[in-house]
Parts: sequence; structure tokens; C-alpha cells
Amino acid sequence: MDEPQLIEKIASTFPAKGKNPFGLPLDDDAALITAKKGCHLVLTCDWLLEGSHFLRDRHPADSVGWKCLARAASDAAAMGGAPRWFLLSLALPGSHTGRWLGEFLGGLKRAAEAFGCKLAGGDTTCRDEILISVTVIGEIARGRAVRRSGANPGDLLFVTGTLGEAELGWRLLHGHRGAVPGKNAAVRKHLYPEPRLAIGQWLAKKKLASAMMDLSDGLSSDLQRLCAASGVGARITAERLPMTLRVPSKEALPLALHGGDDYELLIAVPGKFADKIPDVYRGVRLTCVGVVTAARKVFLEESGKVRELVRGGWDPFRAERTSGRKIR
Amino acid sequence: MDEPQLIEKIASTFPAKGKNPFGLPLDDDAALITAKKGCHLVLTCDWLLEGSHFLRDRHPADSVGWKCLARAASDAAAMGGAPRWFLLSLALPGSHTGRWLGEFLGGLKRAAEAFGCKLAGGDTTCRDEILISVTVIGEIARGRAVRRSGANPGDLLFVTGTLGEAELGWRLLHGHRGAVPGKNAAVRKHLYPEPRLAIGQWLAKKKLASAMMDLSDGLSSDLQRLCAASGVGARITAERLPMTLRVPSKEALPLALHGGDDYELLIAVPGKFADKIPDVYRGVRLTCVGVVTAARKVFLEESGKVRELVRGGWDPFRAERTSGRKIR
Repeated sequence: MDEPQLIEKIASTFPAKGKNPFGLPLDDDAALITAKKGCHLVLTCDWLLEGSHFLRDRHPADSVGWKCLARAASDAAAMGGAPRWFLLSLALPGSHTGRWLGEFLGGLKRAAEAFGCKLAGGDTTCRDEILISVTVIGEIARGRAVRRSGANPGDLLFVTGTLGEAELGWRLLHGHRGAVPGKNAAVRKHLYPEPRLAIGQWLAKKKLASAMMDLSDGLSSDLQRLCAASGVGARITAERLPMTLRVPSKEALPLALHGGDDYELLIAVPGKFADKIPDVYRGVRLTCVGVVTAARKVFLEESGKVRELVRGGWDPFRAERTSGRKIR
Repeated sequence: MDEPQLIEKIASTFPAKGKNPFGLPLDDDAALITAKKGCHLVLTCDWLLEGSHFLRDRHPADSVGWKCLARAASDAAAMGGAPRWFLLSLALPGSHTGRWLGEFLGGLKRAAEAFGCKLAGGDTTCRDEILISVTVIGEIARGRAVRRSGANPGDLLFVTGTLGEAELGWRLLHGHRGAVPGKNAAVRKHLYPEPRLAIGQWLAKKKLASAMMDLSDGLSSDLQRLCAASGVGARITAERLPMTLRVPSKEALPLALHGGDDYELLIAVPGKFADKIPDVYRGVRLTCVGVVTAARKVFLEESGKVRELVRGGWDPFRAERTSGRKIR
């Protein structure tokens, strides 16, 4: 297979449908798009690299396809945006342009359909390792985007779903010999994360959130980032965290605090809107886990005792130095 | 250096200026942009990978920074678009977050200023090899974008600048021991290519081109692509090709036909507009090299003899199989 054949294989997986006035863009230098009237565009990109974010012999190609788009779509969700288009930069060995590529494109296509976005272009090359970078372009109505920087003291902090489950799934997958236990819910969350698009868009549309971000590197890291961007601090309560019930709570707490890859949303909600936040939105739980404070530090209350919460989530540069652990 | 410090270093190289209503986007999940009224957006992305597109010990970091943006900007130029924003996906070793990163960002910043586009976001991670993917978002007035697919039999084929010089520069650089001969014009074209933004935009605005693309993989490959997209063929004349004068013409012709990385434009112009194409536009030469034909093959006329032009340019997947040569 040469490069034009590879591009043709990708293009035929994502045929141009309906009234796209620009035709199939993959055979051109660039894609053309137009935002809906009254909308801003939301731009975000994410790496998914073999050896850093997935392992060829542990992660099914289908999961790699799903996850590379889910990660970037989650960033759009975290601003309240709706993903509309994506660009795929893909480098892979010539040996992987057959079955592996077919399964990868299958997962990518399912994700594109689930998230409502279209392939608009990309770049391909040949490489010993599989390298992926995905750019997502989303839309959001003007004045509705939710930033990280808007949290105020007194706001309540909510999270969606369950925390730490994807990290647990990765540990199960990594420690498992033989066939991948694909039916385990924690493993599935690691392999096929669901960006919280519906909740993000609803909160943005209703203007209920003062700040929002997605939890990709673990709550203890990401909450620090939201607080730093907003110039505030926070106090969260261990007992309130929606932890996985699959392991004893002693194990579940560090997973919930520091586990990465959940792609849940962390949301700051002004007190006056707190009663407008439902317990469950479209099947996804929303849990109040703490409060925003004026002092610029993050504290954890556990069994009535308060201690400063030290960042323990994923940082690729710290990981290299301290543990040599590279995959998360 | 940890990841937040790395992001801060990148962000401080590209401070938000003027009336950007969205502030500095690098500390958020995604960037927000708005296209000018009456404009489409042009989307394109390009890899620049160590070992595939550059070598750490041969290519100055400053050139890597310039070139990663120039490649993607050239795709926007090939549609007639003006680059406005870019996203930077960067993976690099912890050991390269000091001087190398500083020089890389210097080259990237000079390119951003030269091409008129702003850093809008990105993703960073730690990796043994340096991996870069750049997405460029450009603007173009509605109805003005030039596609690959619009060429018609009888159109004249023009190219900008000189062909084969970047390939010659790469050979000089690769064969050279010791300090990089940075003042050699061919080496400079390889290290610091100039996307033909002004010509591309002018041709699109004046509606003078029926089809256009940039020459990144070599004329013999890229002309085949333009012809395939347009459902046409072409005949070009060897003696007309604007070849480099730095080597004997026997060596210059294969360089002009098959050399990659020039980032010149290949333009199809309807015959009735031929006299509107100047010999030089803003210091860059425009040369008529042949004609579009109905028969779907590409021919080369040399010393009065006509032969079919076989694709000999760069294809990363063919390169792996045939020669083991991976860098272009």
C-alpha cells in the first residue's frame, strides 16, 4: 500500500454525505468549513501515542480509534461545545495498513458518529511506531463558552460519573495475561471513554457553570489547574467523591483523587444555581464534591480531618524523571 | 520542568496581544475563534517527525520550528487561504525543554509573524523522539477557494519559484560534516521554506486559477495528484522547468521532477487568463511549464521526445519498502 491508497482507504471509511458543498476534502490540500451563524469555533488537539498512551499488544485497534477522538472531543465538551469536524494525523508502519488500520478506522468511525463530527482532513506518514494527533473543531453559541478561569469563592464543585474507574481499568488490562477482558466495565471505561458532551452543552446553554474542565490527568492535578486559572482554591470531601465500588474504599480513594483518563467533567456552579443541577442528567450522575474557596490552595477533608491535597495525577515530564513509568 | 511549566514557556513566547476577546487560550481546554464575516475556514495539518522529516543533529531547532508551521501554512496557501491560527502538538524529551525548546519556539515565532498567524492552543507530552503535528486554520472569502479538482484540458500549468532546490539543499546538508552551511541558498530553502501565501491569495482573489496545490512531494508525484483529482492529464516540457542553476542540468532535471519539500505552488490557469499571470509576483517567479490535457496521463517532453512521466517523488510507504530511506 502506498500513501494515496492509504488515504483512499481512510476516505472510503468516511464518505461525504448529504449537502456538503465542498465534497470529499481528503484529496485536497485543506478542508473548508463554515461555522453556523452566531457561533464561535472551539479548537483543540490531543496526542495518542503508542508507548505513551497505549500499547499495541494491550489496546485493541478499535479502542485506539475511539479514544483518539474521544480525548479531543472531551476538551470541546469541557467548554460546552459540540464537536463538528476533526483532522486525523496518523503515522503507522506499513505492516499495519491492513487489518489493524481497518479496525482502527472502525473505532474512529463509531466515535465520529457517536459524537456527531465528520472527518475533514489530515496527514499520514510511515513510522515504526503508531502516532496519532487529532484536532477537533467544535461549535458553540457566542457568549456561552465555559472557561477554566471563571470559578468564584462559594461556587460548588460538581463532577460527572465515577472517578478512578479508567485507571482501575488500565491496571486490570495491564496486569491481565491473555485475552483482553473487554466486558469489564472499568476496562471498557479505559478503552472507550465517553466524553460528557450532552452535560457540557446543557450547562453552557443554561449558563449554570462558572468554570469547567475535563478530568484527563486526575482530579488532584486538574482541580489545581482550574483553581490556578480562576485564582481561587478549593476544599473537597473524600466521602463525597463518586468512587468506584469495584475495589475497597482504601484503594478507591487514591484512584478517585489521582487516576487519569476518566474524561469526566469538573464543574464550578454558583451557589444560587445549585438546586438547578439534577442528580442525574441523561443517565450520567452529577455529584457535589466540594466548594471553591478564596485561599489559593486545595484541601481534602477526610474523616473530619483537613489536609492539603498534593497533586498526584499524571504528568508525562514528572513521570519520566521519577518512576520511568511512561504509559498512563 | 513539568508540563505546566512547559506550557507556560510556550505561552510566554506567544503572548496574547491586542483585542483578543478570549484572552490567552493555552491555559484552557480549547481555543475559541471566530471567522471573519463572509469567510470560510481552511483546515489543514502536517506532521514534522524526527527521523522522518528532520534529524536532530542536522536540522537546527530554529529550522524545525519554522518548518513545522511553513508546511501546514503552505497547504492553506495552495487553496488561496490566509493562515490565521495554529495549534501545536509537541512531544519532546525532558532534556530538550531548555535550549532546544527555546530555539524551536524562536523559529516558530518568526514563522508565525511572517505568515500572520497566532498560536491558539495545542498539546504537549514527553517522548524520546521529537514529534510535531501542526494544525493551521486559515480564512478565505466564500467562493474563492481553489481546489485541486478544477483543472480543465487546455489550461496552462504554472509553477512558482525554482524546483528541486530544497532537495539539493537536503543533500548538501546531509553530506556535510561539521557546522551546517546555513548561508547556502539551497540549504536555506530546505531549512526555511517560504510558503507562497501572497501569490496563492492573489490568484484566488482574482479567480485566475482553476486548480492549485503545493509541491511538497515532488512535481512528478504532485502533478499526478492534481490531474487525478481533476480527471485530466498533462504534458510538461523539461526545458521550461525552473531548475536550480547550482548543479549541471543533467542533475538538475531529476531534482526538479522528483525533489520534495519545495513548497512551491502548482497552478492550472485557463488559457484566457494566461496573459494576466505576471513573470514575477512580489519577487517570486511564475513559469509556464506545460498544459493540461484530456487524456488522463502525465507526459514529459524532453529534447523534442515525449515520454510518460513516472511518479518518482516522495512516498513514505514506498520509501520504507524500496530503499529504507526514511528522511526526505
